[in-house]
Amino acid sequence: MGQKIGIGMLGAGNVGGGVVSALPTLNNRYLNLTGNELELLKVLVRDINKKRIGLNDSQLTSEIDDVISDKSIQIVIEVLGNEQPACEYIKRCLDAGKYVVTANKEVMAKHGAELLDVAHKNNVAIFFEASVGGGIPIIGPLMRDFGANKLTSVTAIINGTTNFILTKMSEGDISFEKALIEAQNLGYAEPDPSSDVEGIDAAYKLAILCSLAFGFDVDPYSIDRQGIGSVAEQDFKYAHDLGYTIKLLSTARLIDESFSVSVKPTLIHLNKSLAKVDGVLNAIQIEGDLIDQVMFVGPGAGPQPTASAVLADVLELVRNHLDRGSYSVDHGSLKSMSVQSKNDVKSRYYLRLIVQDQVGVLAGIAQSLGDHGVSIASMIQSGEFSIGDTVELVLTTHLAYESAILSAIEHVKRIDAVQEVGNIFPIDGVEEI
Amino acid sequence: MGQKIGIGMLGAGNVGGGVVSALPTLNNRYLNLTGNELELLKVLVRDINKKRIGLNDSQLTSEIDDVISDKSIQIVIEVLGNEQPACEYIKRCLDAGKYVVTANKEVMAKHGAELLDVAHKNNVAIFFEASVGGGIPIIGPLMRDFGANKLTSVTAIINGTTNFILTKMSEGDISFEKALIEAQNLGYAEPDPSSDVEGIDAAYKLAILCSLAFGFDVDPYSIDRQGIGSVAEQDFKYAHDLGYTIKLLSTARLIDESFSVSVKPTLIHLNKSLAKVDGVLNAIQIEGDLIDQVMFVGPGAGPQPTASAVLADVLELVRNHLDRGSYSVDHGSLKSMSVQSKNDVKSRYYLRLIVQDQVGVLAGIAQSLGDHGVSIASMIQSGEFSIGDTVELVLTTHLAYESAILSAIEHVKRIDAVQEVGNIFPIDGVEEI
Repeated sequence: MGQKIGIGMLGAGNVGGGVVSALPTLNNRYLNLTGNELELLKVLVRDINKKRIGLNDSQLTSEIDDVISDKSIQIVIEVLGNEQPACEYIKRCLDAGKYVVTANKEVMAKHGAELLDVAHKNNVAIFFEASVGGGIPIIGPLMRDFGANKLTSVTAIINGTTNFILTKMSEGDISFEKALIEAQNLGYAEPDPSSDVEGIDAAYKLAILCSLAFGFDVDPYSIDRQGIGSVAEQDFKYAHDLGYTIKLLSTARLIDESFSVSVKPTLIHLNKSLAKVDGVLNAIQIEGDLIDQVMFVGPGAGPQPTASAVLADVLELVRNHLDRGSYSVDHGSLKSMSVQSKNDVKSRYYLRLIVQDQVGVLAGIAQSLGDHGVSIASMIQSGEFSIGDTVELVLTTHLAYESAILSAIEHVKRIDAVQEVGNIFPIDGVEEI
Repeated sequence: MGQKIGIGMLGAGNVGGGVVSALPTLNNRYLNLTGNELELLKVLVRDINKKRIGLNDSQLTSEIDDVISDKSIQIVIEVLGNEQPACEYIKRCLDAGKYVVTANKEVMAKHGAELLDVAHKNNVAIFFEASVGGGIPIIGPLMRDFGANKLTSVTAIINGTTNFILTKMSEGDISFEKALIEAQNLGYAEPDPSSDVEGIDAAYKLAILCSLAFGFDVDPYSIDRQGIGSVAEQDFKYAHDLGYTIKLLSTARLIDESFSVSVKPTLIHLNKSLAKVDGVLNAIQIEGDLIDQVMFVGPGAGPQPTASAVLADVLELVRNHLDRGSYSVDHGSLKSMSVQSKNDVKSRYYLRLIVQDQVGVLAGIAQSLGDHGVSIASMIQSGEFSIGDTVELVLTTHLAYESAILSAIEHVKRIDAVQEVGNIFPIDGVEEI
């Protein structure tokens, strides 16, 4: 009954290294029970002369064709990252009748539906648990465990780098720039951190979650997105004073038949579970009509957690899918739906304004907001962070349409005493508190 | 391509009602996509004359044979609860070549391995996501998503009734008895609450989690178990003063080659995630070598969340398993391992003693503990809850073997000034703080 399962791998970076180092233990511990053995036959790398722990020269190749033409390879693990050539290689592997396991959020966010179709046509499957949430099982649960629910929202912290930076800022009263340098020194942020810091990485992952949770094919670039670069030390101070912290929140919400999706720095009340998800941890909250709310928390990145997810997909293929054909995912048959225009989104808001310290300023601002149907819930005035004769005015609003807030702000900017609009962040939670 | 999938259901109580009411929406919303339709053909009930919402007379039967002999029924949902006749009926359904979905923790805890074998022999499968954690996906993730990990611990709050009671006690300074009555009035506790309150329900669920996480066939009655009936108002007061709360914690830990498993009221530090899992919520924390720690939080009981889990299993069967034969779970092939004797377990402990208010008492107690290698980490003395000339002495210890604590306590009891040992609870976390 023992069977050798030939594996190919594209890429041997951090995650690939994690897979290579976990494989022998896995084979000893687990597959001995079934008699099957995973054999890593070929690994595609750029430089075959570079020594790599756990891999010998005969496994390395710099030619994708060596992987594709190897008939003994049944499963290909793609851990190259980035859109190309990864996407092209995945397609070629599927066309060659190989099962694919990928950790690539960018490829799945942009080409997921297409790749699932290609897999289906070739009677194989593509699994992608590692593409969102690292070691947290989330793709599997969304595909299998909530199928009887009408899901209504996904609320997630799915970028460890920004969560680490915001946690440092929250704990230490330090600037974004200092926190970013610390994240880079610890290897949590890339030398070019823009994909993380600007919320692009989170948008890829949110698009994948949306496609599974709601069946909508969401263009990641259409997601209303705001990075964390503008979050200032004093925003944390004011947020704390108001009972909140600030997280880069990825949110998708289905209300009646309208759908909103965004990645934004967001105020979260300190008594909420998501407020306590700190450092490089990720968390994903799913709401549905039967389950109410289920939350998953765990390590969202790193070679070992990601290897755990990659190898879980490999094991699932070996145990239940090889020689059985394609895994039935309903993704391919799902309707595409355009994202609701953002000015229909209702939220409470946090506004930080820099204003001249003079009589009547607040009245003027309150008037402008009120004229647009935006009412103020709380106000803090502070001179602590101001320069010259200005003060900072922090307002939270009751529920308001984003369009109303944005128009109101246009009017507020025209008030002479208003020097600058510091930041506008949504506050999590639809209900009033 | 449209197919009618015949469903039978055993039982039409709370969970069965949840399934019946979720089914039409599910059929409309979801299965129209695939062309398949779920048809509830027969429902086994005790009284076929009782009217039931969503079911007509022709669907009801009081004879199990009507379900078993119906060749159109491919999947049987078992929601009877209790060990018998549920277990016998499940076996007969599997033997008749039907797939089974069960929510029955008692049956799976006591007969899980056997039923998986019966299913395998008949080339069908038994799914049981609803047996632990209600709407939280945990059986699936344990079977599929952590396969590459060496799992080292499961730490869980898996009984909503006791968590509701303890939360009420923690928030309101009320007695166990009052909190229990409130839980009963709200329908969270049974008229006979013993299975929940004594930790039996949690032990069933923990045994199921152990079999999946560690591959050990754990007899639920062998689990070291302590109910919550003895938890007093003042235990919460002292716990809060020390920075903790009290939860009924179900724990399984694999350290080196030894294994410990228990269900006990446990002090949990207020800054830990599990301390914030309140009311009827459940939470399950899994630790492994690759994932570090992953936590799942959600509604652990109730008709709707449980129906969500039952129907997820049904959908998974329809999509990927019917006509394909048995689902490969490695459960059947896993070794049985006896549970390590509890006196090898090391923990920190909370002790509450009622002592005469006289000089030298603490010295004597400290001496007795010290003689057994148990050292004191902190101490509170309080007359607030005492009667006559007694005071309460609350001690926390550094890490100690349970055997050492128990022997030490035997000596402490013999000290004249010690009137009573109020409670001994472990403190969560192996590490010193």
